[in-house]
Amino acid sequence: MTPATQQNSILTVPSGLRLGAVRAGIKPSGNLDLCAAVADSPMQAAAVFTRNQFVAAPVTIGRDHLGTAGTIRTVLVNAGNANCATGEVGMAACRESCNAAAAEFGGTPQQVFPSSTGIIGVPLPAENVVAALPALAASLGSGREHAALFARAIMTTDTRPKTFSATVTLAAGQVQLLGFAKGAGMIGPQLVPHATMLVYLFTDLAASSAELQQLLWPAADGSFNCISIDGDTSTNDTVFLGATGATAITFSSLAPEDRAEFARALQQCCESLAKQIVKDGEGARHMVELDIRGARTRAEALTIAKALAHSPLVKTAWAGEDPNWGRLVSTIGMVPFAIDPQRLTLAYGPHPVFANGQRSPQFDAAAVHAYLKQPEYVLHVDLDMGEAGCRFWTCDLTAEYVHINADYST
Amino acid sequence: MTPATQQNSILTVPSGLRLGAVRAGIKPSGNLDLCAAVADSPMQAAAVFTRNQFVAAPVTIGRDHLGTAGTIRTVLVNAGNANCATGEVGMAACRESCNAAAAEFGGTPQQVFPSSTGIIGVPLPAENVVAALPALAASLGSGREHAALFARAIMTTDTRPKTFSATVTLAAGQVQLLGFAKGAGMIGPQLVPHATMLVYLFTDLAASSAELQQLLWPAADGSFNCISIDGDTSTNDTVFLGATGATAITFSSLAPEDRAEFARALQQCCESLAKQIVKDGEGARHMVELDIRGARTRAEALTIAKALAHSPLVKTAWAGEDPNWGRLVSTIGMVPFAIDPQRLTLAYGPHPVFANGQRSPQFDAAAVHAYLKQPEYVLHVDLDMGEAGCRFWTCDLTAEYVHINADYST
Repeated sequence: MTPATQQNSILTVPSGLRLGAVRAGIKPSGNLDLCAAVADSPMQAAAVFTRNQFVAAPVTIGRDHLGTAGTIRTVLVNAGNANCATGEVGMAACRESCNAAAAEFGGTPQQVFPSSTGIIGVPLPAENVVAALPALAASLGSGREHAALFARAIMTTDTRPKTFSATVTLAAGQVQLLGFAKGAGMIGPQLVPHATMLVYLFTDLAASSAELQQLLWPAADGSFNCISIDGDTSTNDTVFLGATGATAITFSSLAPEDRAEFARALQQCCESLAKQIVKDGEGARHMVELDIRGARTRAEALTIAKALAHSPLVKTAWAGEDPNWGRLVSTIGMVPFAIDPQRLTLAYGPHPVFANGQRSPQFDAAAVHAYLKQPEYVLHVDLDMGEAGCRFWTCDLTAEYVHINADYST
Repeated sequence: MTPATQQNSILTVPSGLRLGAVRAGIKPSGNLDLCAAVADSPMQAAAVFTRNQFVAAPVTIGRDHLGTAGTIRTVLVNAGNANCATGEVGMAACRESCNAAAAEFGGTPQQVFPSSTGIIGVPLPAENVVAALPALAASLGSGREHAALFARAIMTTDTRPKTFSATVTLAAGQVQLLGFAKGAGMIGPQLVPHATMLVYLFTDLAASSAELQQLLWPAADGSFNCISIDGDTSTNDTVFLGATGATAITFSSLAPEDRAEFARALQQCCESLAKQIVKDGEGARHMVELDIRGARTRAEALTIAKALAHSPLVKTAWAGEDPNWGRLVSTIGMVPFAIDPQRLTLAYGPHPVFANGQRSPQFDAAAVHAYLKQPEYVLHVDLDMGEAGCRFWTCDLTAEYVHINADYST
């Protein structure tokens, strides 16, 4: 039997895992703001974190717990407070939350993986977390409604939950893959908002922490590391992958094609969640896929992609649905390695715009303008210098983005 | 006598130079769009240009002329068309304009220094330039009104002309320094707008091209290379310095203190014009001076400054007059070299905001908010890691910026 991945129309929770969420009074809105994913027994896990040199207390502690315990019993997430730049008080609040969660859900404090998203620089009210744990325990379950609660509780200024659920069919049987993401931004009146990307992936496959880490890195690198809304990297970004092993289907005993299928499913999951984040980007009206080809190295292709994705003039042209290739050319011309203006070609989908150092003879401004009105489209960039490339997803920069991020209430 | 520089309240044209401007029908608005600065005899000159790999035809030809002839008789500038990414047609149009200008104003075509700013990718109508040259010649003069015409003709979406005029008193006598700048953006209906910075500096000091180049580089590097509106580098950026020598005061014969004074005056001129550009940035409501200290190298200080100046979240916080130090910390944390979060301090003017890895105990949100309402203010960043630093000038990112750059008319 050929291994296959089938995306599920309803959220399916992997065996051996329960999810839940409650209102702990951390979000000023009073919405769901504390949630947990609790494994029936300690699960193998892996994670990748932000590269920011200012990291939040839960990132420091979560990385430490994962390194110390190797297994995780509880993923504990609060939204509404990032617990970042909060000094020793913040570290203590995070540790207190982990201790209480271990007492409530089982396992050791080191088997709690904490995450926070929201306001920077304000101490996390650990007492709210602790007080809400019994209700959180009561909310746990394995139904689609429990998954939906978890997806909603991690949101801040996200306008919609971001999930992915698939069944992976392998020779030994079926395993479930369930993913959650949040990413947009959050406005904290009088305080310090900051966008944070949090991603939680769960499976009931059995795999070691080392195997999970090996699977997670390429999947995250080709998806979450290939998106940008505004180019600002958060202090709290975390991608977590936990394997309950409840199916007793063991990764190490899989045939190569089954391993490859699971890796593909994980990549598909990450790419789906990454695109959901971009589509829900603050103020975004268009998702643009950058298809960079003909580069000498993947690193150079990514440099081109990020230059385009971070240029205010390019992003505002996209907002204006403007077939404005001059801004593309000018931005590409500033990368810190040599390119050949005469070999560069640019096309929006099927529409050539630039070739041979000038406007393409086939350039049709009206046709390109119509193409750019679509909510999702592709910009093809061919450097014609080598065989490397990348795909990258970004969005336009609208006045709404500025309004979301410039509002300040005294 | 101590050398001194006195800024002039009215524009004073250096001896040996005439300026003028006309309407050549290149700007769709019908405003002044062709201007010239003509030296009575060939003047020594120096220039620095954009580093963009896509350069406009006049940049290629101007660099070539300066290298070949060494002296310049005429600076010829058009606004409304950048003559960039226009291929051989664009090169021919630029050469034709230079040939005609040499015939009109004297000297060889290589003694014409051409500049263009405006739409990218549309052939420059050389016939408009050529036809307007007799009228341009008739407009030339050395009064303040002639300088004002020149300053106005180089504008595109600039909301006001940008000039600097000073008298430098040296032991041997007085020399004049006159500077013009333009920089903002331009909206070309259905076409390709792009911001361009053009700067023209003139003096009646006598100096060789090599001496001028040595004077120009540090002045431009500490001013125009230390500003950013949106981080996008134009294909046409040019800073030109011409010395008519009409005073017969020779740079090489100056005493060291007089040389230093002229260099200071040039630096003051460049810094003034650079700040005028930032203050007139598209949609900008605040000019922010970044005072970076305690870096190990000036390059690292500039990296910090540019990271802040290019972060949409930081720039929108400035637009919101929001004492949002979390975004500053997060942005600084992403620079590609090690910093020490515990040693970093941040202050908006006299108001401390961040120290010892967390919010400063003296942080006063209301006081900072009031400070940030000012049209110009300073952000102090001290890394406490070394002795290097820089000053950098940037502006906020407003919804108006997006509107200016996202408008597209079919």
